Amino acid sequence: MDEFSFIKACLAPLAGPEGLGLLDDAALMTPRAGYDLVLTKDTMVEGVHFPNGICGADTAGKLLRVNLSDLAAKGATPVGYLLSIAWPESWPNHEFEMNAKSFATGLKAVQAQYGFALYGGDTVKTSGPMVVTATLIGEVPAGRMVKRSGANEDDDIWVSGTVGDAYLGLQTILSEQNSIASIPPDAQAVWTEAYWRPTPRLALTELLRDYATSSVDISDGLIADIGHIAKASGLGIAINIDNVPLSNGAKLWAAEDATRDSLIKLITGGDDYEIAFTAAPKDRAIITEKGNALGVPLTRIGACISGDSVACFDSLGKSIRIDRPGYSHF
Amino acid sequence: MDEFSFIKACLAPLAGPEGLGLLDDAALMTPRAGYDLVLTKDTMVEGVHFPNGICGADTAGKLLRVNLSDLAAKGATPVGYLLSIAWPESWPNHEFEMNAKSFATGLKAVQAQYGFALYGGDTVKTSGPMVVTATLIGEVPAGRMVKRSGANEDDDIWVSGTVGDAYLGLQTILSEQNSIASIPPDAQAVWTEAYWRPTPRLALTELLRDYATSSVDISDGLIADIGHIAKASGLGIAINIDNVPLSNGAKLWAAEDATRDSLIKLITGGDDYEIAFTAAPKDRAIITEKGNALGVPLTRIGACISGDSVACFDSLGKSIRIDRPGYSHF
Repeated sequence: MDEFSFIKACLAPLAGPEGLGLLDDAALMTPRAGYDLVLTKDTMVEGVHFPNGICGADTAGKLLRVNLSDLAAKGATPVGYLLSIAWPESWPNHEFEMNAKSFATGLKAVQAQYGFALYGGDTVKTSGPMVVTATLIGEVPAGRMVKRSGANEDDDIWVSGTVGDAYLGLQTILSEQNSIASIPPDAQAVWTEAYWRPTPRLALTELLRDYATSSVDISDGLIADIGHIAKASGLGIAINIDNVPLSNGAKLWAAEDATRDSLIKLITGGDDYEIAFTAAPKDRAIITEKGNALGVPLTRIGACISGDSVACFDSLGKSIRIDRPGYSHF
Repeated sequence: MDEFSFIKACLAPLAGPEGLGLLDDAALMTPRAGYDLVLTKDTMVEGVHFPNGICGADTAGKLLRVNLSDLAAKGATPVGYLLSIAWPESWPNHEFEMNAKSFATGLKAVQAQYGFALYGGDTVKTSGPMVVTATLIGEVPAGRMVKRSGANEDDDIWVSGTVGDAYLGLQTILSEQNSIASIPPDAQAVWTEAYWRPTPRLALTELLRDYATSSVDISDGLIADIGHIAKASGLGIAINIDNVPLSNGAKLWAAEDATRDSLIKLITGGDDYEIAFTAAPKDRAIITEKGNALGVPLTRIGACISGDSVACFDSLGKSIRIDRPGYSHF
């Protein structure tokens, strides 16, 4: 199987009409009147963003999911994407064929789940590790995108789902976490699922457009990404770290450590793809109610204050110093 | 210099308003009423698409130019782009800083030349060679994109500029071409310029929209890409290879070889970024006239016939067999 047969056999069936059968130089898209487009691009490198040798469906699915998460945070709905794959040239043909087919299967499953199509892209070979990039295109009613910069002083800050499971999932996968033997296997399964198949919170897009004053996905780590809101909005944000929602397994894991170090790892570990957003205190009840109706737990973890950075404290009001607020790409 | 300071210092100044200062999760674009969007994505890998170690302005410029060429072939005008850079983690900090700043300089120059802006993207590190990807967004009046699939039997086939200079440029850069010593240095400068700084034929967009029945950029090699038109349009295309336009240096180089092998290398070598297009015979005069007015030489090299592939012959009518019509990405 070579590049052209892979594109024809595995990718062309994933293309929407905009992709012109993946037989042209470019994709053709007619934007819907009354909508803005939201564009995001994330790259994942083997050995950096996913473990070495895991180059099939799981990686394809995660690539789309992390990009979809960016759209969700902006209140946008996905319509299509462009894909770039750099395959390791060192793979023998059977390994290429196996990974390529598996990769396409992973793309197909996520497309079907969230309803969007492949528009185009590029495939190349590299002497290094696998590198994959997706550019996602979403739409949002004109003027309704939720930016990072709209938070107001006294707004609440909320987070969806639970935080830190992907961090624990990666430790489980890498088997570098000595204490994991004491945690029930089903809890650890939640972690690896969170790592490989994060749920992009597209269910929240309308709620975010209606109530969020600012929003971000917490891919870099909860504290780092809340810092992005603080910076973009020109204010401070106070977080009660004891209010940060954890899965049962993460609670057990953190409870094994009498210090705060474990909890801090969870809230700075990154790769979570939950949404942190700010909203006016008057909307607390309706936000909780709508989150429940959507089946997405939403937890209030702090408030916007004067200042220019994130300040963490615990339930006793003690200030918690965090030296490394999130994952740095470098 | 780390990722965030590079983005802030070098990339943020290149962003259009759609990029929101590169401080948000995504870009926000309001499509222009009455226009379709044309989207294309090309990836370049160090050691495959550009020589090892040349990771600054030249590579940045070429990345944009090759994507702009795809837009030009479709009759589209660029408006913005998203960029992904995977930097080699092996570089010491001073090498990263030097290349990163140079890369941004290359982006800036091409943006200024062709009038479009950075919308967003991602930067990561890799244990392998540098990998760069751009997703270009162009616009075209609604319904006017020029596809590969519109050629009609008896249409002429044309090509812009000269063919094969980039092939010779790469040979010169790699210094693997023994016969080059006999070619004047200024001719060789044309080749390396064609390799590093191909001119995306955006000057032709209106002409292509008005007269081309199909169009493609010849990045894979003239014969291979004309084959793409033949396939997409469901017809054959006959090419007189003696009519293919060559630069003076390329003519000298080809003349050193009594066989056709040199000429065949030029018309199959790829990386040229000229435009091949089909048009009705009745438009011959106006196409030549408009090409001259735009300063872009346009040469008629063959015609669309019945069949399903490309047939090459010479000025004496002798059939020329070409075993490998272009560059394969694999």
